[in-house]
Amino acid sequence: MTLFFPIEDYFTEFPKKSEPLRWIWYYEIHNPYELHGHAIREIIVSKRTKYQYVDIVDTYLWGKMLVLNGEPQSAEFDEAVYHEALVLPAMIAHPSPKRVLIIGGGEGGTLREVLRHRDVQEVIMVDIDEELIEISKRYLKEWSQGAFDDPRVKLIFGDAREILKKLEGKFDVIISDLSEPSASSPAHNIFNDEFLNSIDARLDENGIFVTQASDIKDILTDEDAYHNVIRRLLQKRFKWVQSYSAFINSFFTEWTFIVASDHYDVKGMSDVDKRIEEKLVRKPVHYDQEAHRKFFSFLKSLRERLNQ
Amino acid sequence: MTLFFPIEDYFTEFPKKSEPLRWIWYYEIHNPYELHGHAIREIIVSKRTKYQYVDIVDTYLWGKMLVLNGEPQSAEFDEAVYHEALVLPAMIAHPSPKRVLIIGGGEGGTLREVLRHRDVQEVIMVDIDEELIEISKRYLKEWSQGAFDDPRVKLIFGDAREILKKLEGKFDVIISDLSEPSASSPAHNIFNDEFLNSIDARLDENGIFVTQASDIKDILTDEDAYHNVIRRLLQKRFKWVQSYSAFINSFFTEWTFIVASDHYDVKGMSDVDKRIEEKLVRKPVHYDQEAHRKFFSFLKSLRERLNQ
Amino acid sequence: MTLFFPIEDYFTEFPKKSEPLRWIWYYEIHNPYELHGHAIREIIVSKRTKYQYVDIVDTYLWGKMLVLNGEPQSAEFDEAVYHEALVLPAMIAHPSPKRVLIIGGGEGGTLREVLRHRDVQEVIMVDIDEELIEISKRYLKEWSQGAFDDPRVKLIFGDAREILKKLEGKFDVIISDLSEPSASSPAHNIFNDEFLNSIDARLDENGIFVTQASDIKDILTDEDAYHNVIRRLLQKRFKWVQSYSAFINSFFTEWTFIVASDHYDVKGMSDVDKRIEEKLVRKPVHYDQEAHRKFFSFLKSLRERLNQ
Amino acid sequence: MTLFFPIEDYFTEFPKKSEPLRWIWYYEIHNPYELHGHAIREIIVSKRTKYQYVDIVDTYLWGKMLVLNGEPQSAEFDEAVYHEALVLPAMIAHPSPKRVLIIGGGEGGTLREVLRHRDVQEVIMVDIDEELIEISKRYLKEWSQGAFDDPRVKLIFGDAREILKKLEGKFDVIISDLSEPSASSPAHNIFNDEFLNSIDARLDENGIFVTQASDIKDILTDEDAYHNVIRRLLQKRFKWVQSYSAFINSFFTEWTFIVASDHYDVKGMSDVDKRIEEKLVRKPVHYDQEAHRKFFSFLKSLRERLNQ
Repeated sequence: MTLFFPIEDYFTEFPKKSEPLRWIWYYEIHNPYELHGHAIREIIVSKRTKYQYVDIVDTYLWGKMLVLNGEPQSAEFDEAVYHEALVLPAMIAHPSPKRVLIIGGGEGGTLREVLRHRDVQEVIMVDIDEELIEISKRYLKEWSQGAFDDPRVKLIFGDAREILKKLEGKFDVIISDLSEPSASSPAHNIFNDEFLNSIDARLDENGIFVTQASDIKDILTDEDAYHNVIRRLLQKRFKWVQSYSAFINSFFTEWTFIVASDHYDVKGMSDVDKRIEEKLVRKPVHYDQEAHRKFFSFLKSLRERLNQ
Repeated sequence: MTLFFPIEDYFTEFPKKSEPLRWIWYYEIHNPYELHGHAIREIIVSKRTKYQYVDIVDTYLWGKMLVLNGEPQSAEFDEAVYHEALVLPAMIAHPSPKRVLIIGGGEGGTLREVLRHRDVQEVIMVDIDEELIEISKRYLKEWSQGAFDDPRVKLIFGDAREILKKLEGKFDVIISDLSEPSASSPAHNIFNDEFLNSIDARLDENGIFVTQASDIKDILTDEDAYHNVIRRLLQKRFKWVQSYSAFINSFFTEWTFIVASDHYDVKGMSDVDKRIEEKLVRKPVHYDQEAHRKFFSFLKSLRERLNQ
Repeated sequence: MTLFFPIEDYFTEFPKKSEPLRWIWYYEIHNPYELHGHAIREIIVSKRTKYQYVDIVDTYLWGKMLVLNGEPQSAEFDEAVYHEALVLPAMIAHPSPKRVLIIGGGEGGTLREVLRHRDVQEVIMVDIDEELIEISKRYLKEWSQGAFDDPRVKLIFGDAREILKKLEGKFDVIISDLSEPSASSPAHNIFNDEFLNSIDARLDENGIFVTQASDIKDILTDEDAYHNVIRRLLQKRFKWVQSYSAFINSFFTEWTFIVASDHYDVKGMSDVDKRIEEKLVRKPVHYDQEAHRKFFSFLKSLRERLNQ
Repeated sequence: MTLFFPIEDYFTEFPKKSEPLRWIWYYEIHNPYELHGHAIREIIVSKRTKYQYVDIVDTYLWGKMLVLNGEPQSAEFDEAVYHEALVLPAMIAHPSPKRVLIIGGGEGGTLREVLRHRDVQEVIMVDIDEELIEISKRYLKEWSQGAFDDPRVKLIFGDAREILKKLEGKFDVIISDLSEPSASSPAHNIFNDEFLNSIDARLDENGIFVTQASDIKDILTDEDAYHNVIRRLLQKRFKWVQSYSAFINSFFTEWTFIVASDHYDVKGMSDVDKRIEEKLVRKPVHYDQEAHRKFFSFLKSLRERLNQ
């Protein structure tokens, strides 16, 4: 535990201590009542693209962190927890995902996880912000790990709502990695019946759809939380609509996801380790059978909120 | 998402809005690089007992929050997640816990959870800070819910290390709910072999010991984290030493626990719902079989850190 | 100089140190780019009157501080600098101020300073917020020092714009101590020609008008700062319109005032000490000839901004 | 006035607003009870030299700001107030300052002000941190305005205490612009009798010595404030020891200085404008007779503290 304290004692040892205390902070303002501050080493990027403010800051505990319109998207320390959780359950639940569509996911971590699967033949990734992709390629190489150069990948820049109407063929897995739908986000108001009609039109009848679905806290405190809204929309369309969550240290919360399908009980998979062994070219860092069980288990109180 | 914004717009509607934006904050300073701020409605208590600084603040999102030496201990919103997670797995794993010892746990939430069990005949609770108990009784009634008045309960005030030597008889379950061992805490340096010898001397041979074991993040970043230190000490003494964790919203992290026993595989219980039904007088809010599974499941990466 | 530092070192000396480091702060948010934080001991009052949010907090460096709608009004440590600066130059510049009108000034410090003058026979104080006056009387006694009980004082509660129209007779000195005209303040938009017409109607032809006129910084950065707006309005009406300022430690800035009169060159007074000696029953703590010189002197750059 | 507010409203107008609200802040921590936050656009420099941490941040209100060991040194917006106040009173009080010594003053602003004087033939500037000077030359050109290239200037890098012993000849004016003597500063503990002996040895018998002397607030709250310590040391040596101060917006306080001399009553100068006209090649932005009067006037309460 630490607190404000006279720095005198600290600096009397200067320059012996290798890591300085710092005075420059990035503040994540959750709402008018809660905020989180991260001391930063450096502002690596700070610019305004055509669609949003993009900052990449170097934090002391979580390494590089991508921030869009003031909101953290993912951090070097544990972006893999987020991206494995978003991508891998759906990908291994499908018997052979050859064609995958990613909506959003500018950092490249979602793409990287999709490409782990040996059956993948084509990945189309749609993002509205070409400049953000360029920034990610240059400054967030740890996320994409070369994924943008994989010959199976096709990037399309534009509004997902428009692009979806023009795409042809069916997809085995569709992954929505849009940022939070705040008014500031280009993803604002995107998630509605019209959008889901477009998703349906492109999803193979045996396909699986998965989306990030916001902070778990909101489910507890707001009947009309983003998670609940998406969940209700999906329940009208799919047989299986399964919520799950993963604790992300650098987000300081559990992040939620929803996976939907007419054919596969993703939550119920009991051979996760075997599927990983057979299907994934490179092994996950965090995800396995026990992690899967953790992701798909909820407290009694939360299940009651979700009527799950 | 929210940010600094001209308040003009806000106050032009004054006094229509029922909940004001606020300017008084409690800051939890995790370490020199991370802090969390909570806007507060009121400082309900702020005093210095013989042993520590005690504050109770009323936060907007989490309700009342107990703060010792600047560190949050538990909040009205989700103290029950913490206290159910600490107490119930050990209590229902034991076939019939008649005599229970609690070390620390000043708020009374741990006591409340122990008293849920129909077999409990005597609970001894040892806390160093009598004044804190008085404050809890008066201002944190939602935590104890009358538990301090239960005739099965005996409170002893004093240093746990001394009291343990004087106690007689054996206990079926011993629960350590000491605050974090920072230098500021009266629990500083308490957790060592000598302390565990005293615990051993009072624990029935079929008994179960459980303790809170700090923030999950530290396990990932520090080989000598408090969790790891306790775990290694316990592994020298018990056959089963099982780590588990629960995400506590108001802590902004997963909190860890360790349960140790020579006879019971707490993690492996598959009849949690049946035991709850049979053994607990009042039903838990959060804990059941699925919550148990969540608590005792870890990501692959964390299990590798723990060699579990 | 101080900084974040491990509190361990601090608390190892607990409870030897008499003054704890603290974790509860009041934040004054100047604008979207600047804020000031004060650690507080206690929230003495926190309520919402019919007109505004009223907080009284006990800060470590400045003692009690009155906060209206999140903005500091005055602090125990140096409220006397503010109130002497607002009141005394005008009061001693007038040869014999018998009848004085105060608009605003809820704390009672302005009233206290007016009552120092031996010639004062009647003071009328108009404030919109009766509840604030009650709070001030009870919790800010150090400000009023009994002034509210002086038989020469008459309090009227109501909107100054309305009350001014109903008052009778002329005043030798009129003092405007309204809070900043932010949208949140009951003083919003009050300062205009209509208001000044009402002032004029009540000001004796040899009278002096003085008003607080906001932060000096705004003069430098904004042509239409509150100070400049008031100044231009007054320059259309009075022969002498003189800006001055006093540095208030607890405001972290120089605060400005404007004094206006057709007969008295307040700035030019060179016998301030003699007037104080003859006219004031109790001596000021901060104000004398040299303080007067400091108040009424500006840097060349600022005078150019003011065309003074 | 502004406060936390839902950013939704802000971003609905994106990208119409030209200046974004920001989430990255530099915190100046005055002491354990007070802090000031500045939103920043950019971290221009952030490095650790051999002697100190050097940051240059771009703030929204004050432009570029130099920060050493977390403490602000001067800001683009008003560094000229500080540097004119430090340098010009002493320089114009001396009838003909031909040879000037500057100790510290790495930004180059002090040097720039010295070079304004037409009689100056040689300026020796001693600073311990060569790397800081290189950074200043490159990133703080607005401060030095070419001063480092003036042929009259000689830079010496090293510990002032050592260098002073090796310098030869006498100086007409010696200016100490060392940073605050906190334990973290290379200037820690520098100001003592031994140091003043070295100054004396190099100061012409008709010479003037001037030094920055810290925050005015400390004089009011601490008998042994840096200002008071220096003042007492100088009073043992010089006939005239005169304290003065200038309000620096970006410091949020009045900054103090002490000028000492056996021959010149600097405070008493009444022909400042004439001297400026005759002696300074380029005219000051802030300093003139009225500014001089403001600098050298103190409130009665402060004079009593200083026994001035």
